[in-house]
Amino acid sequence: MEHFEVTPYEVSGEVNYEELAAKFGIGVIDKRLQERLFKLAGEPNFLIRRGIYFAHRDLAWLLDQYEKGNKFYVYTGIAPSGSMTIAHLLSFTMAKWLQDRFGAEVYIQVPYEEKFLVKKNKSLEELRELAMDDVLNVAALGFDEKKTKFFFDIENANFMYEQAVRVARHITFSTIKDAFGFTNETNIGAIFYTSMQAVGSFIGSVGKERNVPCIIPMGVDQDVHFRVARDVVEKLGYYKPATIESIFMPGLKGQQKMSASDPDNTVYLNDSRETVERKANRALTGQQSTAELQKKYGGNPDKCAVCQYYRFFFEPDDKKLEKIFEAERNGSMLAGEHKKHFAETVNRFLEEHRKKKEMLRGRIEKFMLKT
Amino acid sequence: MEHFEVTPYEVSGEVNYEELAAKFGIGVIDKRLQERLFKLAGEPNFLIRRGIYFAHRDLAWLLDQYEKGNKFYVYTGIAPSGSMTIAHLLSFTMAKWLQDRFGAEVYIQVPYEEKFLVKKNKSLEELRELAMDDVLNVAALGFDEKKTKFFFDIENANFMYEQAVRVARHITFSTIKDAFGFTNETNIGAIFYTSMQAVGSFIGSVGKERNVPCIIPMGVDQDVHFRVARDVVEKLGYYKPATIESIFMPGLKGQQKMSASDPDNTVYLNDSRETVERKANRALTGQQSTAELQKKYGGNPDKCAVCQYYRFFFEPDDKKLEKIFEAERNGSMLAGEHKKHFAETVNRFLEEHRKKKEMLRGRIEKFMLKT
Repeated sequence: MEHFEVTPYEVSGEVNYEELAAKFGIGVIDKRLQERLFKLAGEPNFLIRRGIYFAHRDLAWLLDQYEKGNKFYVYTGIAPSGSMTIAHLLSFTMAKWLQDRFGAEVYIQVPYEEKFLVKKNKSLEELRELAMDDVLNVAALGFDEKKTKFFFDIENANFMYEQAVRVARHITFSTIKDAFGFTNETNIGAIFYTSMQAVGSFIGSVGKERNVPCIIPMGVDQDVHFRVARDVVEKLGYYKPATIESIFMPGLKGQQKMSASDPDNTVYLNDSRETVERKANRALTGQQSTAELQKKYGGNPDKCAVCQYYRFFFEPDDKKLEKIFEAERNGSMLAGEHKKHFAETVNRFLEEHRKKKEMLRGRIEKFMLKT
Repeated sequence: MEHFEVTPYEVSGEVNYEELAAKFGIGVIDKRLQERLFKLAGEPNFLIRRGIYFAHRDLAWLLDQYEKGNKFYVYTGIAPSGSMTIAHLLSFTMAKWLQDRFGAEVYIQVPYEEKFLVKKNKSLEELRELAMDDVLNVAALGFDEKKTKFFFDIENANFMYEQAVRVARHITFSTIKDAFGFTNETNIGAIFYTSMQAVGSFIGSVGKERNVPCIIPMGVDQDVHFRVARDVVEKLGYYKPATIESIFMPGLKGQQKMSASDPDNTVYLNDSRETVERKANRALTGQQSTAELQKKYGGNPDKCAVCQYYRFFFEPDDKKLEKIFEAERNGSMLAGEHKKHFAETVNRFLEEHRKKKEMLRGRIEKFMLKT
């Protein structure tokens, strides 16, 4: 019997995602729902087709609304933890696709005070600076400045605090204590924070004549945050937010959830060319222990972190991805070459990304929510 | 053995204030400190001389700072509970005196969301409207518009939330749970609120080159709120706030702490002429049960709610107050006449107050903190 545990703070054991979905009470995105979504989008989505975004809440309802002419908006957030990694981009890739294909507005929360309250190793000023860099990193993915609003709990607090107070009235300490792993020694700012986070679930409806449906792309480990929010926003008279939830992106060393505590296990957006090459060299592949054995027996792309990075992020084209997998499987591409190509791909992306970032630096104000 | 209990939410038993001060660890304002304060003020203060403001924290230190040229500011707050009563004015009377005599800036917090979070019977919109009326009521006491800043947790949240987050990081749920009578069923907004309240203790120093000492006039039942705040603001690098603390104003029916739940036990600032007359007629006096007995034996001003109203608010002149007390003591002023004079005094005050309020209506924005 396998055992696993998934909370917003920890993932342990070998996760069985179907079991997890059943346990959380979330739906798995089946073939029919997938096809319906792709049809309305006008194109398929590689993250969904590959089972990376595998589960949802109320996605069918969201599409019903869309078909009735009631467009949805996307809510997601940045939690600055030092520097952004490729894994952090997963929800933004999905958000951008929803913006591109459905014309959705995207609201992105930047709650840098949460790290201040929980981690306690950086000042608010340092975190604000990191957060501004994160905003640039996200905007540089190609979001539409007319349809994208970054909002800060602190800088937009004249709007946010009032809304959070409305939420907070409906949440007791009991309700969130166990769910979030809080104790009586948790500080009261961290305790309150969940009501700031819930605001994103209805921010697109505040002041509007009618409610605007909301969808939240996220890692499945974050589901618990929005289970509480879903109950509350309904009491406030808004729609429950829909969600689309992903499995975890593995680390370069193969761990199930990419950890930011081992810098070599993940690729940071600010990694230098040389760092990327070093990390690629140290990455886990699914290959045999020697070139001879690999040529003879082939490897396993499912266990190859490099292949998984292509699958999750760097190779949206299914045919090209299959070629990479096949080359690993049949032993024709040895680890050294595999890693070299990977390092080149990552560095090409990072360089391009940094260029886009620099171009946005002067105009980032246009992406900020004015309250 | 007498037993009494004082918390911000409940007062029971016959309070022994000296015992209470010892229990809370606050100093009693002795003759010497009183004289020093009056000398620096250039005049005595009737509330202190009468033992109504009877206790303090760090008042001597505050005066040391003042003598060194480091002026203090005053922080106080309004908690709109429906309508303001005469008892609510006690801390503002003290604040105004400190402004008049020491040139102190006065910061007045208007945290109407606290009632929303705790009482749950009014909407934020209703509470905001009540709060604006409270602001007018307080400003009409004659505060200097150049030196008085009303600030709202919600409307000034772009400033307040960040400061509250800095406070909240240092306060665990344990720390405030018992002190404030919270349970796990308390909502997370009410739990967080104490960090918004703590901001007033250092608001006058934020962004200043050097720390500005702060003094908080309050009912002694509120002391617990600032005991927590005092510890935290020091960690944030500010001075601990000084306090000056009052005993409770009795109700018209003689209860020790004026309760807003029995409207006849208290005078509201919006009471009509007739209502005041009715309340005065029903008020408790310290007189004998019949006119004959009163003429013969006289009454007890200490047990007379009407006399106490003069003492706490309506008769600042000690000689005139003594005449009122003496007339009750020697039986020369019977209850009917006593109450009639009282009703006239109250109505004169209320009418004058309403006129001042109306004159301020157009210029109240000048009193608002801009953040």
